[in-house]
Order: sequence, then C-alpha cells, then structure tokens
Amino acid sequence: MKTDRLSVIVWNEYQHERENPAVRAIYPEGLHQCIADGLRDTPSALPGARPLTLGTATLDEPEHGLSEERLEACDVLVWWGHKAHAKVDDAVVERVQRHVLAGMGLVVLHSGHFSKIFRRLLGTNCSLKWREAAEKERLWVVEPSHPIAAGLPEHFELANEEMYGERFDVPTPESTVFISWFEGGEVFRSGLCWQRGHGRLFYFQPGHETYPTYYDPNVRRVLANAVQWAAPRVRIADRCPRVEPLETLSVKAGTFGSAGIVQRAEDLQ
Amino acid sequence: MKTDRLSVIVWNEYQHERENPAVRAIYPEGLHQCIADGLRDTPSALPGARPLTLGTATLDEPEHGLSEERLEACDVLVWWGHKAHAKVDDAVVERVQRHVLAGMGLVVLHSGHFSKIFRRLLGTNCSLKWREAAEKERLWVVEPSHPIAAGLPEHFELANEEMYGERFDVPTPESTVFISWFEGGEVFRSGLCWQRGHGRLFYFQPGHETYPTYYDPNVRRVLANAVQWAAPRVRIADRCPRVEPLETLSVKAGTFGSAGIVQRAEDLQ
Amino acid sequence: MKTDRLSVIVWNEYQHERENPAVRAIYPEGLHQCIADGLRDTPSALPGARPLTLGTATLDEPEHGLSEERLEACDVLVWWGHKAHAKVDDAVVERVQRHVLAGMGLVVLHSGHFSKIFRRLLGTNCSLKWREAAEKERLWVVEPSHPIAAGLPEHFELANEEMYGERFDVPTPESTVFISWFEGGEVFRSGLCWQRGHGRLFYFQPGHETYPTYYDPNVRRVLANAVQWAAPRVRIADRCPRVEPLETLSVKAGTFGSAGIVQRAEDLQ
Amino acid sequence: MKTDRLSVIVWNEYQHERENPAVRAIYPEGLHQCIADGLRDTPSALPGARPLTLGTATLDEPEHGLSEERLEACDVLVWWGHKAHAKVDDAVVERVQRHVLAGMGLVVLHSGHFSKIFRRLLGTNCSLKWREAAEKERLWVVEPSHPIAAGLPEHFELANEEMYGERFDVPTPESTVFISWFEGGEVFRSGLCWQRGHGRLFYFQPGHETYPTYYDPNVRRVLANAVQWAAPRVRIADRCPRVEPLETLSVKAGTFGSAGIVQRAEDLQ
Repeated sequence: MKTDRLSVIVWNEYQHERENPAVRAIYPEGLHQCIADGLRDTPSALPGARPLTLGTATLDEPEHGLSEERLEACDVLVWWGHKAHAKVDDAVVERVQRHVLAGMGLVVLHSGHFSKIFRRLLGTNCSLKWREAAEKERLWVVEPSHPIAAGLPEHFELANEEMYGERFDVPTPESTVFISWFEGGEVFRSGLCWQRGHGRLFYFQPGHETYPTYYDPNVRRVLANAVQWAAPRVRIADRCPRVEPLETLSVKAGTFGSAGIVQRAEDLQ
Repeated sequence: MKTDRLSVIVWNEYQHERENPAVRAIYPEGLHQCIADGLRDTPSALPGARPLTLGTATLDEPEHGLSEERLEACDVLVWWGHKAHAKVDDAVVERVQRHVLAGMGLVVLHSGHFSKIFRRLLGTNCSLKWREAAEKERLWVVEPSHPIAAGLPEHFELANEEMYGERFDVPTPESTVFISWFEGGEVFRSGLCWQRGHGRLFYFQPGHETYPTYYDPNVRRVLANAVQWAAPRVRIADRCPRVEPLETLSVKAGTFGSAGIVQRAEDLQ
Repeated sequence: MKTDRLSVIVWNEYQHERENPAVRAIYPEGLHQCIADGLRDTPSALPGARPLTLGTATLDEPEHGLSEERLEACDVLVWWGHKAHAKVDDAVVERVQRHVLAGMGLVVLHSGHFSKIFRRLLGTNCSLKWREAAEKERLWVVEPSHPIAAGLPEHFELANEEMYGERFDVPTPESTVFISWFEGGEVFRSGLCWQRGHGRLFYFQPGHETYPTYYDPNVRRVLANAVQWAAPRVRIADRCPRVEPLETLSVKAGTFGSAGIVQRAEDLQ
Repeated sequence: MKTDRLSVIVWNEYQHERENPAVRAIYPEGLHQCIADGLRDTPSALPGARPLTLGTATLDEPEHGLSEERLEACDVLVWWGHKAHAKVDDAVVERVQRHVLAGMGLVVLHSGHFSKIFRRLLGTNCSLKWREAAEKERLWVVEPSHPIAAGLPEHFELANEEMYGERFDVPTPESTVFISWFEGGEVFRSGLCWQRGHGRLFYFQPGHETYPTYYDPNVRRVLANAVQWAAPRVRIADRCPRVEPLETLSVKAGTFGSAGIVQRAEDLQ
C-alpha cells in the first residue's frame, strides 16, 4: 500500500562508539541512533513535510543492513562512515548507487566524503584539508530559499568541530547551501547538493564522532529538512532501449557514407 | 624537457574493424588511426592552438597501451569503445581516472558513453535511446562562443549516423555545446562538457563504426578544438592533508579531541 | 490569515485576441482565461500540490493589473506577451522583478522570451530563430524526475506550433526539463529553469497565439506543475546591511578606515 | 589589421581619490591608473597569455570614456565604481551590456557589485553584508585549475580589507574561484565567474579605496589572469532571424488545431 510516509534509513559504520569510550560517552547507542532520534524529534520547517518512518543499519549487519528489499522500500538513506570505508562491500555500494540513480535520496555526513558511495556517485577524489582541534565552526546560509535551509538563522555555530578546509575536490555543486568559517582560518563549502540520475544527494560537513554535533538543534533541523528535500520524485530503473523511429526515414540506396562502400546497417550487425 | 606541444593519445578498442569487413572498408587502419589522422590534418580554429604530438593505443596492447608512463606524459586522451567495455581492466580505468582528476583531458566518443571510465567519472548510468538506421543527424551549435565550436557553422549534418536519443542519463553538463536533431524524431545533447577534479571531460556523440563520421570535416574540427580545450591547466596529484591552524585557536578545557575524554552530550547542551 | 492555497495571476497583454478574428476564434476570452482555465481544471501530478486561487491581469488595466498589493499577495505570476512588450511600464517591470527576487515565482510563456521582465531577470538578449509555419513540435522530457515533468510521458507532440530554434541566448539554465524537435529541422531548449534571488523562473516555449496550444492536456499539465514548482519558499525583501563583527578584531594602529588618514602605499609594502 | 594584443580598458568612477586625501594618498593617480599599472607590470601565469594594450576611462569623460568606438575595439573592460553608480548614464550601461553579450569580457571589482552594469547582466540585487574595519581577509583558491588562479598559492592574505559577507545575492556562479575568510567571522564567495551571451564576466571582491589592495602582488596576478580569461572568443551581434525550414514540412489542410477553425498562419499575420 502506498503511504504518504517517508521511509528513512540511517546507516552508520558503528566502530568508533564501540572502540573508544570517549566517543561512546557522547553517542552511547551509536551515531545512527542519535541521528535517527534527531530526525524523529525535529519537525522539518518545510511546508508539506511528510512524516518519517525511521530505521537504522550498520556495517556489521548482513549486507550491512542494506538488502535489496530494504533499499527498495527506502526513500532516503543517511550515511555516516569514517574508518571502515574499505570494509563496505562493493556489491552493496553498487546496489546503493543503483537505487540513488533510480530516485532514492542520499544524505552523506562528515567523513562520509571519503566513502565509496560518495566517491562513486561524484567521480572525484573528494579530498580536502582537515584538522582535529575542537575549534569553532560557523555555518553561513548561502541559499536562504533552499528547502534545506528552511527555518534556520542566517548563521549558526558549533563550538567544537573538526576543521574541513578547501579545496574540496567535488564536482561543481548544483546548490551551495552552507559555507563554513573556521576559527583556525579556513573556509569550507559545508552543505552541497547534486542530482545523480533521478536521485538527490546532499553532503553535510559537520559531525565528527568526538563532538556532540548531532545533538545540536540547528544540525538536527538541517537533517530534518534534508531528508524531505532528498525524497524521491520518481523511481525509474535504468534502461537503454532500442527504439523505433517516430518519423518516416528517408529511403536510401543500399550503400551509405562518403568514404567507402558499406552495407546497410542491418547487414553489419 | 617542458615543451609547448600537446601530447594526445587516441585509444580504440579496435575490435569491429578486425571482425567486420564493412567496418574495415571504412576504417582500414582502425578508427584510432582515422581519428589521429584527422587531428593531424585539421588545424584547430582556436587562437593559440598548440601543435600536437599524436599517439594511439588499443585494447590488445599490454595495459591497453595506457601504462603509467604514457599517461604521465599524456595531455589529452581520446576514447572510442563499444563492444569490449567489459574487457577494459579496472586497474587501467582507475589509472586513467586518477590522471583525469589530476588534470589530463579526456574526450569520450560515441558508444564510449557506456565505457567504464566515462561512467566512473560521471557516476551515472549514462544510458540513452538508440537506433541504428543510417539516418540524418543535424548538430546545432548551442554555444557559439565555446572553444569547441570555434570555426563551425551554426549547424552541420551527417547523412548517416546512429540515433542516440534523450534522456541521456548524465549529470547536468557544465556546457552544452551541441544539440542534435534526428530524422527519426529524436533529440540529443550531443556535445557536453564537465570538469572532474582538475581535468576536463568532453563527450561527443557522433561516430558509429559503420559510418564514415570521422572523415567529416566538421567532426574533425570539433575534435581538433576539443583536444585544445581539454588540455591540462595544472597537474596536481591528490592529497588530503592534515594542516596546522593559520589563526590562534581559543584555549579550551582539555576535554575534546580525538583520543581525549569528552563530556557527556547532556552536559554540553 | 495564512492559507495553504497558492495564489496565481495569469498576465496577458491581450492584444491579438481583440484585433485578429482567427486568434479570437481560438481564445475567445483571451489567452489568459484559457491558461487560467487550464490551471483550474488540471490537477498537478505532484504530491503535496496546493490548491490554487486564480486571477488574471492584462496590459490595459491600471498598472497592467499588477499593483503592489496584488503582487504582494501573489505566489506565482504567469506571463504571456508578444507584440506589446514595449508598452509595459518600466516601473511595473521593476516591481515584478523585486517580487521575484524576494521569492515570487514567474512562469514566462512563448514570445515572453522577449518581454522586459524576462530579459531583465536573465540579463541576456534572449534572442532565437523562429518560423511561423504550423509545423509539428515534439517535446522530449530530459529530466523525468523534475517536478515540472511529473505525470508526463517521455515525449508529447503539438501538431501545430511556431518554430523556435537555437541558439537561444539565455544564461546556462539550472535545469533543462524539455528539448523540442521541430519538423522543419531545428531543436530548442523548450523548458528551462533558473533561480534569481529567492524566486524561481520557468520558461516554456509553446504557445503561439494562432494555435490552440493552451488547450493541450500535456501543456496544461506542464503549467499546473510549473506553478507548484515555482511557489515561493521564502519572501525576503532585499537588504545590504552593515554588520558588526562576530569575532574580536585585532587591534591596529589608527591608520586605516573609511575616513581616516592612511599611509602611502609604498610604506605599506 | 587584426593583432594578437588584448585591448583592455580600466574604468573608474574616480571620485574618492579626488575628494578624500586619505584615498588620494594611496592612489594618487586614481585607482584606474594603479590597476592599469598592475596589469602592465604583472605577467599572467597563463600559457599563451597575450600582451596587453592598456587604456583607462572615467566617469567625467564624455560618454564616461566609453564611446561606441572605444568599446568596439575593447576586448576586456575592468570596472571600479562605488559612490557614483547612479550617475552612470543608462545609455552607456546598455552599450556596455550589448558589447558584453556580443563577446567582450568584463571584470567587475569590489563595490562594483552594485553597479548598474553588474546588476543588469545578472538580474539580481547583488546585495551583501559589509563592514569597513580594516580587517584581515584570507582568500582561498577553490578551483586551482581555473585560469584565473594560475600561479597563485593555495591561499593569500590581505591585511586590511572591507568585509563583504554572505549572502551575496547573485545567480549561482558557473565557477567559484575564491572563497574568503574574514577575521570578523564572515565568509564570502570572492571570485566568481559567469557567461552572459558570448561574453565572460568575473567578479572579484577585494579593492576598497582606503586600502592599498591593488598594489598587492597576488591581487595583481588575479587581475592579470582575469583579463586573459575574459578575452572574447567571438564577437557576434544579436539577431533574432526568421528562418526557412531545413526539412520539407508536411502539407496540411487549410485549417489546423483542435479547438477551433483557424486559417493558415500566413493569413493571420
């Protein structure tokens, strides 16, 4: 039965939280659970926002929790990964890519800039400068009319974040929603949108595992808006069909071309 | 020794010409040789066009003729492939991608829309509609001031081409240089530009192996312009460095950081 | 009282219909009324589509029917003009521009490509090739996932339209929703999107006054979708404020500043 | 006689320097002369850079020094204006716009964001935040392979500049070459490229009249690169021609359309 709810899966590699007590202290149930809680508790500021059906998935689950069946039913996938990018199965990456190209939304967070799925969809290295120094980040809203910026102030701050600095090696984004100022002197395009195939892709830079970023009300609002924005408009599986002409083709002699005698196309196949 | 010449490699899978007499009749020395001949014989209409040093490479050569050394010295790679996309070694594809991202130009021709390297750089399926019926194609110049259109008329025709029709599943191009009209009723964005990393990418739709497209003077001019346009501006290998702050960071209590003890989130709010 | 309805004004110069019996035979109540009827009768295929409150405005009304009050309350303005572009008051054009930049949507139809408001928002000549020969036009959907394409087939035809051909002198569009094939041999980017300020702008090429284009079900669906897509997300009047620093500025010698004594450049190097 | 030199005019309103001794102390011969000196003395880092023929023009000259003849011969116009935007004759603005659309390059500096010509070409308010506090600006190169960034370090600093902050109300730029970090906490897209018609447009934010910005070697290099990048590729005056069909049109009965009896198109004109 078709429902009006938006089905969201929050994926997390879920490694730091189990290995590092400092991270676990902030995210005792895992980053994915905190992000999902934020989506549950934060109403999107967008008119017509749809209610969410939330699920999570992690690296250690079979197929990383991203079976064909789950992705088929998923509207928007949120992705957090960092130290275990290489452990993500290529078959699952291709599956996620196929669903994004067919229409599924994808929200990639922070160190997910180096995830297989992000690099595969964008085609570039996705490299950047970085520094882990608990420094102040101020995010400026560059496109106040973008749905992802709905309900946000002109800028907001995170007292402690990892610095990500330009140049960020990504294709020219279709929308630059946020640009960040860092205390240490760098800038970063911290909220970027692309379309790939029929799917929408949003990258959001904040969210280092040693800081409580995903409890921040503004960050939560960004993510609440982002899943609404990334919701599929269509779901079209790929085809590359041979098609019949719509107009009558001119009749030609049994040869064509100007540089040599060749047979009709059907003879050549 | 740094030289002012532009080093171009024309790559061809070189299968049809050896298997199909009709194709061999048109391209007796292979599509790659005809394309290279065209580049040699067709002066670019661009001011400041650099002279070319031309080479070729084919699938059956070791490493498909695309060793690290050759790519290191290559400014622009031209790619024709069709039936053997799957036989191209993934390691070579990654190597080509790395060089494109560092600055090498790439010109992808016709059925190369389904090549591994094109799909990898763009991230989409690159699917389209098609029909092989030796029909008329008329290419319209949409951006007369684009370097790739230099010296071309407002439109030009190919008497016999394979129809490629929309929707072409590629990311929104940065420039649409040509849009084609087909006798059978379809349209196609037939000359498209993107930048990926520091490299430039041009896709040009005409060039089916059963038609003498690469002898056409306008097609040759397009390719002559394209290799000039795609020439590297820089050659920068990827890095993702940790950097020191440029400004003095505020002193904080010793609670945050990658390996440190952090407070619980609730204490931070 | 804030309402969920979308307020749409269809503007028409309303000259041809009163002067030319052949046009009046097709559009007896004016193009604006037919377009408004279409919007009223055609449900948008978009999920979450808002009901419309429809109005019209014409050139001969005071302030062309576009007073500050009406525009203030208007969400999306639809524009049809042709022979009387020069008669549109510059003050009204500036008013419309101001409202678009603040967030109001604008849908420009057919010969509106040469309207003052379209050229003012885009900054280019907006010129093209044309021919009035009642020829067949086939519109191809290039972006099936774009909201404006919702519910449309892969292509649809108009038996009789005025040909508009490339090059269309507009800035690179942010989305190309439709590309048209014309019987006479031309192509045209016939459905294009831009954002200007906080407002969205859609140009749709079909709609010559001597053909019954605005009765076509597919055309009506395009317009029904377009007004939904163009609906404002925000309404922000322009400001260019002086702002206080958010961070403490370094103390400098009292030599710089707007009215202060500055040193000679050679001393500063 | 066609020459290989690039003809550049530096336009300046030339008001501050004559009214304010502090400004005159920095730019005794006017901002235009300092900018022209920089262009003369700074070789572009671009391969194939063309030698320059430099001229200047100011507000108080007849036709602001921008006669049809001068613009006809001009390849790239550099524009500095601030307090006298309103005094620039609309006829001259239209003339400059016409030449840009035909292919002439335009480099708009600093407070030129509010010039008539910039707003007319972009269609938006071009508003921003600002603060005049002699604070540090650090420009980050976001596109190292862009010609305008040739020869520049990853970032460079200006010890004293006017702060310009986001949101900058301009259409999404085609290239973002620089993003600036300001000491006071703001960010700004400080080097932006667009194409309008056949002409290229570059906006560069630094250059307040009370600071010696145009003596800075990196700023000078940016401008030297920018005039090379903005050089015309074509010079095409606008036309909107009626054209004959390229294909045979189907013969139709003397009526067409589905909603009423109308005459053939030629009868309707």
